[in-house]
Amino acid sequence: MSVRTRVAIIGAGPAGLLLSHLLDRQGIESVVIDARGREEIETTIRAGILEQGTVEILTETGASDRVRTAGQRHEGIELRFEGEGHRVDFAGTVGRAVWLYPQHEVLKDLVAARLAAGQDLRFHVTAERVEDAGTDRPRIIAKDADGHRVEIEAEVVVGADGSRSVAREAVTGSYGGYFREYPFAWFGILCEAPPSAGELIYSNSPDGFALISQRSPEVQRMYFQCDPDADTGAYSEAQLWDILQSRVPGTTLKEGRIFQRDVLRFRSFVAHEMRRGRVVIVGDAAHTVPPTGAKGMNLAVADVVLLTDALRALLHDGDETLFDAFPDTARERIWKAQHFSWWMTNMLHLQPGAGDFDRLRQIGELRTVVESGAGRAYLAEAYTGWPLDGARLDG
Amino acid sequence: MSVRTRVAIIGAGPAGLLLSHLLDRQGIESVVIDARGREEIETTIRAGILEQGTVEILTETGASDRVRTAGQRHEGIELRFEGEGHRVDFAGTVGRAVWLYPQHEVLKDLVAARLAAGQDLRFHVTAERVEDAGTDRPRIIAKDADGHRVEIEAEVVVGADGSRSVAREAVTGSYGGYFREYPFAWFGILCEAPPSAGELIYSNSPDGFALISQRSPEVQRMYFQCDPDADTGAYSEAQLWDILQSRVPGTTLKEGRIFQRDVLRFRSFVAHEMRRGRVVIVGDAAHTVPPTGAKGMNLAVADVVLLTDALRALLHDGDETLFDAFPDTARERIWKAQHFSWWMTNMLHLQPGAGDFDRLRQIGELRTVVESGAGRAYLAEAYTGWPLDGARLDG
Repeated sequence: MSVRTRVAIIGAGPAGLLLSHLLDRQGIESVVIDARGREEIETTIRAGILEQGTVEILTETGASDRVRTAGQRHEGIELRFEGEGHRVDFAGTVGRAVWLYPQHEVLKDLVAARLAAGQDLRFHVTAERVEDAGTDRPRIIAKDADGHRVEIEAEVVVGADGSRSVAREAVTGSYGGYFREYPFAWFGILCEAPPSAGELIYSNSPDGFALISQRSPEVQRMYFQCDPDADTGAYSEAQLWDILQSRVPGTTLKEGRIFQRDVLRFRSFVAHEMRRGRVVIVGDAAHTVPPTGAKGMNLAVADVVLLTDALRALLHDGDETLFDAFPDTARERIWKAQHFSWWMTNMLHLQPGAGDFDRLRQIGELRTVVESGAGRAYLAEAYTGWPLDGARLDG
Repeated sequence: MSVRTRVAIIGAGPAGLLLSHLLDRQGIESVVIDARGREEIETTIRAGILEQGTVEILTETGASDRVRTAGQRHEGIELRFEGEGHRVDFAGTVGRAVWLYPQHEVLKDLVAARLAAGQDLRFHVTAERVEDAGTDRPRIIAKDADGHRVEIEAEVVVGADGSRSVAREAVTGSYGGYFREYPFAWFGILCEAPPSAGELIYSNSPDGFALISQRSPEVQRMYFQCDPDADTGAYSEAQLWDILQSRVPGTTLKEGRIFQRDVLRFRSFVAHEMRRGRVVIVGDAAHTVPPTGAKGMNLAVADVVLLTDALRALLHDGDETLFDAFPDTARERIWKAQHFSWWMTNMLHLQPGAGDFDRLRQIGELRTVVESGAGRAYLAEAYTGWPLDGARLDG
């Protein structure tokens, strides 16, 4: 089967679906394919913190009203160290906020919006490769659930297909990128319990990092720093609660049945290239951040907002300027987000093999940040997200 | 020979001399000894940036008026990366400043003030050890220039005797401390040339760090990142200028005869203990920072300001509270300064063996700082110095 469209998108994650939605509003037709089924996409637990700019894009373009009603607005976080909590007040320092709204809820909203608009969104279609990147008619070669070949020819192909991107090879040649691994991971749980705190707690403890997050009044999400090779089955529920409690000294967690466990690996990655000819990669296909600071999905949204402007100029007006500049423009925010994610990770985690000097330096850093209005604002600006229009925060 | 005094101080550096000066103002007698002679102390080139609080202490207590007349007030620095300079405006962000005034000039002022006051300040007297730390009458055992034994008994002994402190052993037992080394050093020069810039330039370049500093209208101080084992004689003058010029792309240095060269090693150190009984260590004897950010002498001054209050309460009122708390109180600022020095070092230097990821992350960090008013203020607060009275910067 052969399909023709203006923009062919691989990946029905936040980047791919939002791009399709934003292009539709510009009158630009697109096709989205994903190897997974709708149910899997709508139920896989992922990140849950949306920057203010992400929420504004979702609501102002009609992609999701539920984020405002079902999501929780958080106006700060707590940094906890040496047995004391210190609030970083986002609203008071930078007048911005984040929303706690799980990624799979965003995806439900976007899928519903795409289908309601009668858009061409195909599940169980697996991209195998992208061809003819250097021409005006690049193509996705894919296979449907029955094993039949599907060929999608477009004016632009966008790889929004995550960290194992198939499109990336057509852009970077050999999966080349800037890469960094971390000697730890997060052990995540979902549990049936009331919230232990009204906002997220980021805790630096002598035994390692923990993050106390929330999901709903009945279900909570928590993480603790673990070995990258940790086995999710290696702990009893009682042991998991002991570990979590010990990582947030000075506060008491509300316990409940643990019904899901997972281990999140920590990697930093930025592809050497984001565009080759008429093929572009965005979101996790182009970059990965460690989860500390919650930049992953938000950075994908920022890519897509920029790319929408570039595609509108290219496909409406035949003006290639923004499209050609897209990788350089996107990269500025990507490296700031990479730094922020690295900074939060390094300030809060126990580095295996690091000596006492580094541990006490971390405490000195945390103290410098929380004791200073400028320090709290500097963190808050990054956490709530730099403006998507590229405006400088100091005007 | 045997001497008795209230406070016996080893070391006629900034910490020892300033402490003697501040104690004198409280009517507390002290004796200062130093292994070096006056000329050596007054001519050795060291650091040159004074925090605002350091200048206030020096001028308000009559220790130095010259800092205001002969020193240069700097209201900012330049961070340079990717061929562009970005000013961090101290005055505009935090309403504070630093002064460029060489440490040996501070020492000249302090020595003159001590001698004018008829204070007991002995050169060429070498401390060998400190005894009886656990009693009310600790003693310094020393030797004068003729090899005669000198014993100084006091109510408190203060080791202000630098990184090779003799007093430290009496406090920490076995020179124990938190320690970190860095895989690079600074190659420093003094040259006869007009200033290349009105303020200090901290430059992150692909070939490594450089700092363009000033000393006077005729003499300039510059540094570049080098191997810790670099040989000061290994380069011709032309080669040194080539290296320096290449490290500040986008600007042109004014060259001139290079008449002094030195290599500064990078170490971070904090002694496990700062007090044992009636013996205290301060300044470099208790902690060392790498030179990036110029915290060394300023941290010594902060120690001494705190210790003066503690000694006044102890020796005037017999109240031991502040004296007992001194190490914990001092340590908060020490670890903030350790972090700041580590941060400036790591943001600006090329890490041997670090990959491209870390280099681009550094640029992302520098961009985040300079593009944000909060980021510039966070750096400016630390650079100009947190308030010496322990006040929080956000009131």
